Amino acid sequence: MTSRTDYPRCAAIFGASGGIGAAMCEALAARGVERIYAGSRSGNGPAGAAVTPFAFDLADEPSIAAAAEMMASSPPDLVIAATGILTLPDGTGPERTYRKLDPAAMQQVLLLNTIGPAMIAKHMLPLFSRDERAVFAALSARVGSIGDNRMGGWHSYRASKAALNMLLKNFAIELARTHKLAVVAGLHPGTVDTALSEPFQGNVPDQQLFTPQHSAERLLGVLDGLEPKDSGGVFDWAGARVPD
Amino acid sequence: MTSRTDYPRCAAIFGASGGIGAAMCEALAARGVERIYAGSRSGNGPAGAAVTPFAFDLADEPSIAAAAEMMASSPPDLVIAATGILTLPDGTGPERTYRKLDPAAMQQVLLLNTIGPAMIAKHMLPLFSRDERAVFAALSARVGSIGDNRMGGWHSYRASKAALNMLLKNFAIELARTHKLAVVAGLHPGTVDTALSEPFQGNVPDQQLFTPQHSAERLLGVLDGLEPKDSGGVFDWAGARVPD
Repeated sequence: MTSRTDYPRCAAIFGASGGIGAAMCEALAARGVERIYAGSRSGNGPAGAAVTPFAFDLADEPSIAAAAEMMASSPPDLVIAATGILTLPDGTGPERTYRKLDPAAMQQVLLLNTIGPAMIAKHMLPLFSRDERAVFAALSARVGSIGDNRMGGWHSYRASKAALNMLLKNFAIELARTHKLAVVAGLHPGTVDTALSEPFQGNVPDQQLFTPQHSAERLLGVLDGLEPKDSGGVFDWAGARVPD
Repeated sequence: MTSRTDYPRCAAIFGASGGIGAAMCEALAARGVERIYAGSRSGNGPAGAAVTPFAFDLADEPSIAAAAEMMASSPPDLVIAATGILTLPDGTGPERTYRKLDPAAMQQVLLLNTIGPAMIAKHMLPLFSRDERAVFAALSARVGSIGDNRMGGWHSYRASKAALNMLLKNFAIELARTHKLAVVAGLHPGTVDTALSEPFQGNVPDQQLFTPQHSAERLLGVLDGLEPKDSGGVFDWAGARVPD
């Protein structure tokens, strides 16, 4: 993997108040990235000279369209959808059995984990330059891999990430027709010490539970090394491709 | 592939008024299957001495729960979710570009192609015997395969089928813990001359456009030959496994 001194010049992080998203903003600022658009629901993202906070809601397409419009005059060459839901806002955890499937809960998970990132892609990909490297990444998860699925369970979450992975593949195929240097990728961050994973950390050995800072650094490094030929794949924090 | 004289004794087809579902009912009746529950939105399914029509709506879980309750005293050993949507009821076709993604349309496709079959599984899998062969199948599609995706496009449809394929894998894993003889599978029916494919048949050579009867016969034959070790996979009309 090689690093490029000219990339990223400008980044947009959707989900900049989450554990991994906030750490990505910090890491990008520390690298000296000129401008970082930091999106969160409140609009009160991380502070810093290079940081431009903005508000958006995954379930509100106009808010994402407005964010893209705000960035249009100085567009990012790195966009990360650092969002995701595992436990519902009402405290309902991921389903362990098909007997607990609930259509409203499934809809909510699909809305936030699949449709939301798709809306970010819809409005952000048109900002990418056709002549320069540009990267669109979304937090996916190893459990979104059908081929890697040994344990089952977490039905809605797994389904939403499999659907997201399909969309990322689709976006990669479509973008490659016009943007020869573009990369679209899903990312498996590992098990990171964040609010999302907190209820499920019991079975994770200490050395495999990452800080958000560690995960963010590794993921940005992985993105640095991805080439257009890698576009459409899902990659873990170590740079290994996750099976479809 | 072997055929079994003791299976299926009793089948439930959800989507029995669709092209493939109706042809499956006919084929099963012709085989002498004792009882065929034939579900459609109107409840006016195919007629026949062995056929018990019932009404259900993919978007209405209680209607699916009621159908399962109706079947509980004489439960099926073959359940097929022969449903699916490609073009929306308002005539909107599948998206050719990410620029056309619409959150409401995506939700509708996911509701019908992913959540609906999940609800059928939730209420029908508990009817399966632990000691006898039982098969749950859902119409999927080759375009739901991430590994096989070369063309892109059809974003919501592809994503909904990838999510469905993940759920089928999950159901297979969960069911195998208690039902050693059960099989869960996705099916790729080929391009079949039905209302779903009608707007898209232009590029299909004549000999590759199946009648619903041909597709139904092939798919039932494929299910006959599946063993518990195959559970969780997606299979095409010729019995070949579709990549994840």
